[in-house]
This record gives sequence, structure tokens and C-alpha cells, in this order.
Amino acid sequence: MESMKIVIFLFDGLTALDAVGPYEVLSRIPNSKVYFVSGGTEFVSCTGGLHIVSDYSIYEITEADILVIPGGFGVDKLLNNTEILNWIKKIHEKTKFTTSVCTGSLLLGAAGILRNLKATTHWNHIEKLKKYDAEPVKERYVIEGKIITSAGVSAGIDMSLKLVQLIGSESLSKLIQLSMEYDPVPPFDAGSPEKISKELLALFHSANTQRNNA
Amino acid sequence: MESMKIVIFLFDGLTALDAVGPYEVLSRIPNSKVYFVSGGTEFVSCTGGLHIVSDYSIYEITEADILVIPGGFGVDKLLNNTEILNWIKKIHEKTKFTTSVCTGSLLLGAAGILRNLKATTHWNHIEKLKKYDAEPVKERYVIEGKIITSAGVSAGIDMSLKLVQLIGSESLSKLIQLSMEYDPVPPFDAGSPEKISKELLALFHSANTQRNNA
Repeated sequence: MESMKIVIFLFDGLTALDAVGPYEVLSRIPNSKVYFVSGGTEFVSCTGGLHIVSDYSIYEITEADILVIPGGFGVDKLLNNTEILNWIKKIHEKTKFTTSVCTGSLLLGAAGILRNLKATTHWNHIEKLKKYDAEPVKERYVIEGKIITSAGVSAGIDMSLKLVQLIGSESLSKLIQLSMEYDPVPPFDAGSPEKISKELLALFHSANTQRNNA
Repeated sequence: MESMKIVIFLFDGLTALDAVGPYEVLSRIPNSKVYFVSGGTEFVSCTGGLHIVSDYSIYEITEADILVIPGGFGVDKLLNNTEILNWIKKIHEKTKFTTSVCTGSLLLGAAGILRNLKATTHWNHIEKLKKYDAEPVKERYVIEGKIITSAGVSAGIDMSLKLVQLIGSESLSKLIQLSMEYDPVPPFDAGSPEKISKELLALFHSANTQRNNA
């Protein structure tokens, strides 16, 4: 397989799994190399306390085969950051695939990339896509040409396995899934708002007992 | 909910998702704080290129409510490291729950914690548990009193959601699952060796086209 340059954008207030889910899948593509890139800081603070290292700044990375934009609380601060948004737009021009996870989709939207396209994001933020002239779709991931947007947090794993099929093969996607033993058995079936009780959904919206957007 | 000290052990050659999956779940427990701990290095290299920050050394951490031991290629180098194994054993004495993901179970075994207990690990390494007098069980996770071992890589997410139920409540586990939109839809059903073709399984074992142990 030809070599694959995978660029994952990092920022303070990132949701760790949004980035690490796709990383865990995509870094297993033979001949691939992952570049962690941020707006400047060397260490990036994920919500919850984890710090991860950004190896490159956006000034050092001018192209990518696969671009991954994760989400998280920190997205809000970047939605008007023209430097970051212009960088995303510029990298997107040459990618084979431009992808987002969770509210990372809003960054693609703010960069003008989702105009007149179907897209998805975290279920609790999906209406915000309209602000960027995208059509919100409740799917695990949405493929529009070379752009793939994903639902919340954990959806980046599913999206990335699909991407491996598209850029590699079905067999490679399955081998990577097997290597990660990704045969999910959550103890409960509560991963989407349609699947939990009205009482619990009300608690979700009212209580600050959990981080609810990323 | 009472405050919860969550300690995640890091080491070079770690599989990132083994640590970040549980982190993403457990850091959402109200009143919890996650401590990333290593044998000494400030930065830990995950297989695939990601570097994450270890905030504490094992000399600084003497107890935990929840201990998480992830796996990865780097486990092999630690199986005879008495300093690390003694630390794990000492922390385990006072935990509410001691957990492992993937080949992290072998570290629990080497620390003498799994003797005469059922346990699991990554499907490709499960027979190795016998070396530590543990009884290998092919389950997503295995609960033996306060010890929970998990299957490979992604299984740490399922295990952690179960742990949230045990240490908190079913409702809290569901709320966290919802916040992560953990409603998995892998593009293929290939996450365990029973679910893929013999040809693909042979390719998995013969080819070095993917990282096959972590």
C-alpha cells in the first residue's frame, strides 16, 4: 500500500477519544504515519486531565492524505479563529479524505467545507450544523465525496474503520478491527437519546453530572 | 458521589486506546480525578507514534480507588520488572477496583494478583494467562471480586462502563454512555477470531501488515 500521511489536529479542550479512536485505527494502516498537529502549543490539554503531545504546529504541516478533526469543549473557541480555519481549508484542498469526529464537524462547517452537504456530529449539537449551511443527518457517519463526518466521540472508531475500507480494502478494515478486538458489548443499550428513558434524558440535560457535549 | 482517585499506569509501548478508552469513561464520573502514572519517564510513547504525558511517577502514587493497567507491546519488558510489579501489588491492596485492559492482564498476572482466578486478555494472548495460574476465559470482561480484566484494546470501554455501574449506578453508566454516543456500528462484524474467515485469520497470523497484539 502507498504511504499515507495522517494528520490529526489537536487543541486545548479536546475530547481525547475523538482523536485517539481514529488514531488507534488509522495508525495500523501499513506504511502510514500519524502527525499530531496543533495551533502552537507543545502539550494539549484534553478535557478530563490528559495531556498529549503535539509534535508539529500548523505552520509545519502543509498537506495530508487523511485529515482528522476531533471535537470537544474547546471547539467553541476556535469557531472564529481564522488562522485555524484557513489552515483546515488549505489542508482539505489536497487531502484524499477530510474527516471529523463529534463537534469537530462544526470546525469543518466554520471552515466552509460542509456547505450544501449532508453531515453529522454529536447528537446533542446536531442542529448547529445548519448554521454552516450543512444538512444535519443522524447517522453514525456521513460520507459526502471525500468528506466524512462522524457522530459523537466513540463514532470516530466506526468512521475510521469505514475509511480504512475506502482507502485500503475490506480485508484490511477487518484485520484492524480484529487486532483491536473491536467486538463491542456495552453493558447497556444507552448510546443514543432514542434508547434511554425520558427521565434519564431529562437528567442528562438538567444535571451537570457528566460532560455532555463531547 | 464520593471522590474517586483513578490511577492509570503508562509505559513505553503502550496501546493508546487501552488507556484512553477507560480514561474517557472514568474521567466522566462526577468528583473523580485521573492520575497518569509511569515508572519514571515524563512522556510515554504509545505504539503508533502518540506521546502522552505521565504526570506522576510510581514513587508519588501510593494508593488508588481504581487502578487501570493497559496493555501493548511494551508489556513484555515489564513482566520481570519487580519494581513495577511490586508497585502494582501494593496499590492493588487498597483499591476499590483493580482493572486491566488487553495484555495489561499479564502484568496483573505477573504481579501475582490473578492466581486461581478467572481472567481474560486480548484473544491472541489468552493462553499466556495460564503461566500466572489464572484460568483464561473468553469474555468481554471478567469480574472476580474487585478485579476486572478485559479483552483486547477496545474492550476497556465496555469494562469501564460496567465499572461505573458497580461503583456508581446503572443510571450513571447510561448517562456516560450517552454523552460519548457509544452506540457502536462497526462497518463489519469482524472483531473476534470466530467472526472472520479462516483465510483472513491465517493472514492475520502470517502477515505483519498490522500490529497484532495490542
